[in-house]
Amino acid sequence: MSKFRIAVAALFLAASCAWSAGAFAQADPLPSWNEGKSKQAILDFVGKVTREGGPDFVRPAERIATFDNDGTLWAEQPVYFQLQFAFDEVKRMAAEKPALQATEPYRSVLARDLKALSANGGKGVLQAMALTHAGMTTDAFNAAVDKWLSIARHPTKQRPYTEMVYQPQLELLAYLRANGFKTFIVSGGGVEFMRVFAEKVYGIPPEQVVGSSGVVKFRLTVDGKPELFKEPKNEFIDDGPGKPVGINRFIGRRPILAFGNSDGDLQMLQYTVGGLGSRLALIVHHTDAEREWAYDRTSHIGRLDKALDEAAAKGWTVVDMKTDWKTIFR
Amino acid sequence: MSKFRIAVAALFLAASCAWSAGAFAQADPLPSWNEGKSKQAILDFVGKVTREGGPDFVRPAERIATFDNDGTLWAEQPVYFQLQFAFDEVKRMAAEKPALQATEPYRSVLARDLKALSANGGKGVLQAMALTHAGMTTDAFNAAVDKWLSIARHPTKQRPYTEMVYQPQLELLAYLRANGFKTFIVSGGGVEFMRVFAEKVYGIPPEQVVGSSGVVKFRLTVDGKPELFKEPKNEFIDDGPGKPVGINRFIGRRPILAFGNSDGDLQMLQYTVGGLGSRLALIVHHTDAEREWAYDRTSHIGRLDKALDEAAAKGWTVVDMKTDWKTIFR
Repeated sequence: MSKFRIAVAALFLAASCAWSAGAFAQADPLPSWNEGKSKQAILDFVGKVTREGGPDFVRPAERIATFDNDGTLWAEQPVYFQLQFAFDEVKRMAAEKPALQATEPYRSVLARDLKALSANGGKGVLQAMALTHAGMTTDAFNAAVDKWLSIARHPTKQRPYTEMVYQPQLELLAYLRANGFKTFIVSGGGVEFMRVFAEKVYGIPPEQVVGSSGVVKFRLTVDGKPELFKEPKNEFIDDGPGKPVGINRFIGRRPILAFGNSDGDLQMLQYTVGGLGSRLALIVHHTDAEREWAYDRTSHIGRLDKALDEAAAKGWTVVDMKTDWKTIFR
Repeated sequence: MSKFRIAVAALFLAASCAWSAGAFAQADPLPSWNEGKSKQAILDFVGKVTREGGPDFVRPAERIATFDNDGTLWAEQPVYFQLQFAFDEVKRMAAEKPALQATEPYRSVLARDLKALSANGGKGVLQAMALTHAGMTTDAFNAAVDKWLSIARHPTKQRPYTEMVYQPQLELLAYLRANGFKTFIVSGGGVEFMRVFAEKVYGIPPEQVVGSSGVVKFRLTVDGKPELFKEPKNEFIDDGPGKPVGINRFIGRRPILAFGNSDGDLQMLQYTVGGLGSRLALIVHHTDAEREWAYDRTSHIGRLDKALDEAAAKGWTVVDMKTDWKTIFR
């Protein structure tokens, strides 16, 4: 094969590729986002940090984007879904071990008595979490979460929880990755819980999920099989000021884009915009009582108060769910 | 441009690419490894887990490889390099604050009195570590490590520490990544210390470095600047049984290949081979007193005793530095 023919072939192919790329660039990468300030802020930011030779260019290795999970990537009403998992697991376990049915706080869980469970600083909730999240190997826990996700349905929307994720955010995650970003979850939720579905649902692999965790111990079984055993003791709470600490510990690099929805994300957003160069801080504001839920300053779940004030003061991008999102759920 | 011409062009290019790939496959990806059982074990393992449709195929997302750092990726004699950093930093700080020169344990550090520093369970060493690794922001610490690496020289080899890395391992890391593996460091060393050079030296980004860590606190300065402050308190020791725990916490997936050199890596190796499917456990045996160092069962640094016995019993791959490595340092 002559060098000339290879060169000609390469030219043809290059022309054809360039044409495809051009066509791709013209397609809207965020079709579920309505035109407006929020969408434009995202497009402008990604445009400038990826423009080689431009003043705001960021090399791909440093294009770290962190997303809260509950209320930012998927819904969180009427209770955090991980808590719903714990309640459903108590029910499943109580069917197997009837003694649990008459024992507090499990009796209150079965009676759905949230008031009793919330008393004494939520002691009942913590006990239900311990029963369902510890005293087993990591493999057994992962299997329980996986099974629950396959059968459980949201109490009011009647859909699997993995369909309660936001379509505009799935598009944003894909758009960022297509532009060389590495996308991470940084959530107050349990890291092991989220890892069971994060790869399949969000395209985020386990090693890019940062979350709260309990103590885990390594041990060998009597027949010498190594296993990791979950103990009923908190180790790290990845919420509020814990989020930048978790980012430092797990990622070791300051994000250039962070997306949250509550006061628990405030410090992550502060830390993100506190770095040098271009930064983008975004907040989902739950304003759509019809298609999703509407809540902010006084909500017990996902309270957005201080962070909403700081967003206004600092010019962060507040995404109004009702007007900014064409579609809500995937 | 006719469809026919594009098709012809694509065919030419495909043929040319296939030819290049063939040529590449024939080149030795591990030129600093002598032919022998160790090299063959690596080539066989990578061959079978990447063979699509084969019985041992592992999809790329699950090709996790974990490497210890001290004694596995770079040398660790006569003392762990991070300890050398601490001692050099004490010296630098004592020049700035002469009061330190007369204060224990810093006086012993300056006199290089390892016996005094090791007394009381190494209390002096811990104090020197606390002085040089805490009481500052993460940014200030990173800058100190970076500066030290640029000027410090190994006490006997007289080379920068970042040149005390093993050439055969750099080739192995690159070979694994070229075959779709994600390479991680899982080390007892400080995670923040290693991240300063891991990307430049090993091609391993900060988010793929797992290590020991101290408590870090988020705070706002008086003028509202967010920062992370390092406190003199251990938080997580990523050594021995801590290694599989660290792998679970940071990576969330069991490695299919792990490489260590001491008893501190035993549980990581057990955990790795304890998974289903093909697994490869490797140990560097320091046997080359001439080109590097020779030590194992009785060494205070990088003791290799129980893991050497288990390697023999379980058929793990023990890399004999003297005979398996053509070149030692990069």
